[in-house]
Amino acid sequence: MSEFRFELKATDGPARLGLISMPRGEIRTPAFMPVGTAGSVKAMLPESVRETGADIILGNTYHLMLRPGAERVASLGGLHKFMGWDRPILTDSGGFQVMSLSSLRKITEEGVRFRSHIDGNEEFLSPERAMEIQRLLGSDIQMVLDECPAFPATEADIEKSLALSMRWAKRSRIAFGVQPGRACFGIVQGGVFPHLRQRSARELIEIGFDGYAVGGLAVGEGQAAMFETLEATVPHLPADRPHYLMGVGKPDDLVGAVLRGVDMFDCVLPTRSGRNGQAFTWNGTLNLRNARFAEDTGPLDSRCTCPACRKFSRAYLHHVVKAKEIIASMLLTWHNLAFYQDLMAAIRAAIAEGRMAAFAGDFRAGYRTVEKPE
Amino acid sequence: MSEFRFELKATDGPARLGLISMPRGEIRTPAFMPVGTAGSVKAMLPESVRETGADIILGNTYHLMLRPGAERVASLGGLHKFMGWDRPILTDSGGFQVMSLSSLRKITEEGVRFRSHIDGNEEFLSPERAMEIQRLLGSDIQMVLDECPAFPATEADIEKSLALSMRWAKRSRIAFGVQPGRACFGIVQGGVFPHLRQRSARELIEIGFDGYAVGGLAVGEGQAAMFETLEATVPHLPADRPHYLMGVGKPDDLVGAVLRGVDMFDCVLPTRSGRNGQAFTWNGTLNLRNARFAEDTGPLDSRCTCPACRKFSRAYLHHVVKAKEIIASMLLTWHNLAFYQDLMAAIRAAIAEGRMAAFAGDFRAGYRTVEKPE
Repeated sequence: MSEFRFELKATDGPARLGLISMPRGEIRTPAFMPVGTAGSVKAMLPESVRETGADIILGNTYHLMLRPGAERVASLGGLHKFMGWDRPILTDSGGFQVMSLSSLRKITEEGVRFRSHIDGNEEFLSPERAMEIQRLLGSDIQMVLDECPAFPATEADIEKSLALSMRWAKRSRIAFGVQPGRACFGIVQGGVFPHLRQRSARELIEIGFDGYAVGGLAVGEGQAAMFETLEATVPHLPADRPHYLMGVGKPDDLVGAVLRGVDMFDCVLPTRSGRNGQAFTWNGTLNLRNARFAEDTGPLDSRCTCPACRKFSRAYLHHVVKAKEIIASMLLTWHNLAFYQDLMAAIRAAIAEGRMAAFAGDFRAGYRTVEKPE
Repeated sequence: MSEFRFELKATDGPARLGLISMPRGEIRTPAFMPVGTAGSVKAMLPESVRETGADIILGNTYHLMLRPGAERVASLGGLHKFMGWDRPILTDSGGFQVMSLSSLRKITEEGVRFRSHIDGNEEFLSPERAMEIQRLLGSDIQMVLDECPAFPATEADIEKSLALSMRWAKRSRIAFGVQPGRACFGIVQGGVFPHLRQRSARELIEIGFDGYAVGGLAVGEGQAAMFETLEATVPHLPADRPHYLMGVGKPDDLVGAVLRGVDMFDCVLPTRSGRNGQAFTWNGTLNLRNARFAEDTGPLDSRCTCPACRKFSRAYLHHVVKAKEIIASMLLTWHNLAFYQDLMAAIRAAIAEGRMAAFAGDFRAGYRTVEKPE
């Protein structure tokens, strides 16, 4: 097949079971995309990422444009070949990282000028350049450049930022042009203000995208406000296109967002937490630093079949976390990504069988909140 | 089989092809043992270590006694189960690390008192305790406790230290007792002084060990002095027992030592170098930090079939080393261990075919010295 296609297989209330088909492979939705920031899903080999069940990963335009550089990646045959991942890759536009990582930012109508967090060099990102970079990387799903306002912000600030983001969305879409088999997604902004979110959705639909993301959430507004914003936004997105909630989130965020019609997610939480000794399990998160695991011969999660759970004890994981052994990051990252994929598979099964609400209730009941280190 | 057995399969001058058989598996010699200091061969899963061709790994008594503790490892079922490696493990006695890592050491006839480099706690290691720890860990090949004198040292200092090490060797051997299927190795000391080395060998043979190690080398004396010391020592070791050169070394050290009758090696060099961006190849060592690799689409080593060489380019490895991605440590460690095992396999084939001297010459001719970063 040579086209980007989204097929809705089943619905269960607002929750949707779908399938994205692209030349590089299929993406079962709801889907979780592990984050491969700088050309690597940290502490994982690509084949191991695939083994966890991931159909697609995310690459960060900001990091890759700074190092090794988009033109270099292109001359080396593209990001897929470079990093050894031959399935779909979604790239963000770099906008969010410019705001969170770089210094001395100056935003104009044209774009954003900033200093690299790596070497302090002055860099420039415009909608056109963001799309050019993503094309050079060979990205399968490319995101428009948007401005990501800080939270909290006044309604007036959000409205002004939104207007710029919508003008940039239009320029991004034009710059994307026609790329058979590749997709371009718009990003709904508007903070926690329903009428701004809806205006944003309308304007994006008018431009026309292959998929629609919800951006600017999980920035401090809290889960309740995030869910409310989704409820005010997702119903206004085209039902025949994928809905992608960017940068989210904790396991219960995913469950709640699926209940509100979201199809795709990405988040650094499973990988970053893994490197920090934290494990997601079906009974909540565990902090492997805790001394109570020192003689615990049980598996991390008895329902999981990843190498960390199959071959090692909690006592061992506790030891390697304490000793700062690299294998701790490797095993806990693998486990967390496996857990996230298992969760998405369970969600997909629940939607297919029309029991998503019950699944969500059971999940929340079994899942405890984050365990703090002792 | 329930016994430790060493079979000499072929000789080629002083070079020896052998096979150690133990309940947990066979060890093809000459053998290189990857170092799994604190219960993990750094940046590797145990199954990947095995995939490189390793028959045996080394564990460090010093690190494991401090964390998680020998009694704890024993209560968790032993080191093999703990770390997920079911083949033979050789443990050192902790003596070398006490000298190199701990502080406030006080050596008496009884043993050595020191402070842990982890928490500053006072600890004590005697020949009896070193053997007890190794037994608790479940080690297959246990090393006597010796004193490791600093280099350089006077002949008088070495002689005095040697005398203590030989008394400790005797106590260690007695403490080891009878452990069916497990082995106890003595350690020849004596610095670079042939008559002391030979005295040490005689005294150890009189005590009687399953194998004989050469310790106290690769501490700054240089390759020529190391080879001379081996030539003055190894012929005085029993031919029907394995000869183990501790803590060595660079690839050409291994080739040269095999030519002088050594059967076993361990060294942190392939793993540590891998974490530092350095790769061993059949054409010498490469420093992946060097900018000349930034657009090099070739494999790290065209003769190697490890994942780093099979699936990634030098350009990618350069990128992940520069970006300090964990995958850089994972891939380069894997490659270096694979290279070391490939080298040992090539050495074994050369001995079997009676062309070890020619192999050594070819190897040295193709192998350049260490490449420095730009």
